[in-house]
Amino acid sequence: MDATLTDVASDCAAAKSAARTLAAAPTAVKNRALEAVATGLLADADGILEANAADLADERASGLSDALVDRLTLNRGRIEAMAVGVREVAALNDPVGEELEARTLESGLRLRKVRVPLGVVAVVYEARPNVTVDCAVLTIKSGNAIVLRGSSYAERTNGALAEVVRGALEEAGLPVDSVILSSGGGHDAIAELATREGQIDLLIPRGGEGLKNALKKVATVPVMYAASGNCHIYVHSEADLEMAREIAFNAKVSRPGVCNSAETLLVDARVAAAFLPPTLAQLSDAGVELVGDRRAQADAGGTAVKDATEADWDTEFLDLKLAVGVVDDLDAAIEHVNRHGSGHSEAIVTESQQAADLFTAGVDAAAVYVNASTRFTDGFEYGMGAEIGNSTQKLHARGPIGLRELTTFKYVVQGDGHIRV
Amino acid sequence: MDATLTDVASDCAAAKSAARTLAAAPTAVKNRALEAVATGLLADADGILEANAADLADERASGLSDALVDRLTLNRGRIEAMAVGVREVAALNDPVGEELEARTLESGLRLRKVRVPLGVVAVVYEARPNVTVDCAVLTIKSGNAIVLRGSSYAERTNGALAEVVRGALEEAGLPVDSVILSSGGGHDAIAELATREGQIDLLIPRGGEGLKNALKKVATVPVMYAASGNCHIYVHSEADLEMAREIAFNAKVSRPGVCNSAETLLVDARVAAAFLPPTLAQLSDAGVELVGDRRAQADAGGTAVKDATEADWDTEFLDLKLAVGVVDDLDAAIEHVNRHGSGHSEAIVTESQQAADLFTAGVDAAAVYVNASTRFTDGFEYGMGAEIGNSTQKLHARGPIGLRELTTFKYVVQGDGHIRV
Repeated sequence: MDATLTDVASDCAAAKSAARTLAAAPTAVKNRALEAVATGLLADADGILEANAADLADERASGLSDALVDRLTLNRGRIEAMAVGVREVAALNDPVGEELEARTLESGLRLRKVRVPLGVVAVVYEARPNVTVDCAVLTIKSGNAIVLRGSSYAERTNGALAEVVRGALEEAGLPVDSVILSSGGGHDAIAELATREGQIDLLIPRGGEGLKNALKKVATVPVMYAASGNCHIYVHSEADLEMAREIAFNAKVSRPGVCNSAETLLVDARVAAAFLPPTLAQLSDAGVELVGDRRAQADAGGTAVKDATEADWDTEFLDLKLAVGVVDDLDAAIEHVNRHGSGHSEAIVTESQQAADLFTAGVDAAAVYVNASTRFTDGFEYGMGAEIGNSTQKLHARGPIGLRELTTFKYVVQGDGHIRV
Repeated sequence: MDATLTDVASDCAAAKSAARTLAAAPTAVKNRALEAVATGLLADADGILEANAADLADERASGLSDALVDRLTLNRGRIEAMAVGVREVAALNDPVGEELEARTLESGLRLRKVRVPLGVVAVVYEARPNVTVDCAVLTIKSGNAIVLRGSSYAERTNGALAEVVRGALEEAGLPVDSVILSSGGGHDAIAELATREGQIDLLIPRGGEGLKNALKKVATVPVMYAASGNCHIYVHSEADLEMAREIAFNAKVSRPGVCNSAETLLVDARVAAAFLPPTLAQLSDAGVELVGDRRAQADAGGTAVKDATEADWDTEFLDLKLAVGVVDDLDAAIEHVNRHGSGHSEAIVTESQQAADLFTAGVDAAAVYVNASTRFTDGFEYGMGAEIGNSTQKLHARGPIGLRELTTFKYVVQGDGHIRV
């Protein structure tokens, strides 16, 4: 069985054909396929690790940063965690067939609004092999076929993982082309994928603004951008400063390479002198590079804070780097967030309910936190089992893209010979 | 008060600024604005009719077909009907602030998923003045600002209507730039509108495939296509043929110029000889031009049926013209519909529950009817009060675009100092 085809057009056609069968598959059959994926991952762990070792030994991998090598690396524990994740998705409710509305219209027609799969989903993603499995099982469970475009850095690992998934589909009696790993052709192939109208029902590009902007220029299929997170922590004048320090530290330091980490810390001018010295010292001790405006520098209490450039406020550092700004009040904080944020996750720390309400109402983002770290924006944390990405757009899905976000609906309308007068 | 600005960029900026105030407006204030629109339409009826007469007297209007002139024409009755429609929207529930989910996560965080306005909606539409008012009141009620791009044929009428709406906004204490009629600049201006990222949160082009394809090439803002309807009526072998004849006649003849009218009649081979002669005779008597395949021609029973071209099966005639085909069975009907349909509205006529279930599951469209005319796909008929268009895409909204479809949501998450370990 060849998990890798090279021609985008034939990949899409094969997926479209498989999607029709998968859309009608009973929940039990889809769950049987997912159980076989979990079993297969554990049974083929040696082969998967061998493929991963070959990807890591490839001379191209030598150019990757430590953080990126870590994302690419599998070990037995990570494969076991993948299998656990697959079984968690199997345990979730099947969204397909869910009745969203049922009512009788004035005309007497009986209308039902029923959840159905989208059809074929395509995902373009970075060199993270677990994404291959997460995406495949979420689409299988939601009755969608998927075309996966992973990074060439992870080519061998992804090939081994896709082979496990396709073997599991076959075992469950589902079309193997429900999951297709498409490779080769570079940027041209991605552009082709983005223009297969009638075959690709949804394209999800994961990763940075570069991919997003490139696709905006060419895409004609529906696209949902799982784009960057330029997240802010705003420390209000009525914040519990100890709580604020812990939240800011967690949001920046706990996992700086992911999209729900904080990139900017905004502090109300009334508490800057009290809040900044211990907080910046702790961040600096943890290896965080600090940049900031004049007022943040003035209240830093001795910790080195370099001049922030205009670009710094708009940058997702994905690294141990933080921009620090002092703002006059809540309104100025909201305005800063709405101007520079990417609509992902934003947080206020405050003991004032009124300030919390104004911030959550005024900030235009998928998730707005009160007295909590932005790091919680995540399909697992939100009880969605897993996610295929985090949407920073407003249409269809906002925030974690899970099973329900991979569906659409249709109106099924029953009459007895009804005509419209 | 000048209802018409000419510069797209300044129109969008003004709407964006107004949207922030409108998003926070209480239901009662928005309803007061709508009531003032209804009152204003009736009070200014003479001025509106005068503007409409000038549009109709314009030499450009002399090139329009009777059907298009009819769509452009207002009279006192139609203005009264608009006012009734505005009050119906005022009576609908306000979608803004609706709590879609509320739960406590495993981490202890309290998560609420809350409906919020999109921001700024732009609509590009044909020469139908009532659309100006329908769109404006739906967006006001859903807390969105709107940039309207009507047809230049209706320029004076739209200007008079927009002035009524903006006067009503002022009366209610809402920003007048919540509703902006943007004109001038032709296709370049529409392309500019489609690329105002960060200002336009949703662009809805109404009308044909030409506008859709032009926008697909340039649009970078989120677009929801309210596109054409190539709808089918399929007469199954177990249909009540009398019911089928009435439904086919209604779907074609009752209002041929709208998108939920039927363009193709598919008949099961087993009932073609019995069904087609009386049905085609009735259609022909009503002035319907018939084109069809060989088998339909053979079973036509003497009614003239011209050869259908390949293009006919893919065409939204928007006129008294119908393509007629004979298919072998249910599967062939589903395949024909999925290949040629535009995903709008499809119908089966059958007494078999099994055939109905297979058709509604197998056909990929916004609305699938059993024993009813496709003409029912409509925001009013669906109890949504009105619609801003009919979506033929799968993401976000499918079918009638009403108040809820003009909203998005945000997650508001409350913690007590929660950090992620």
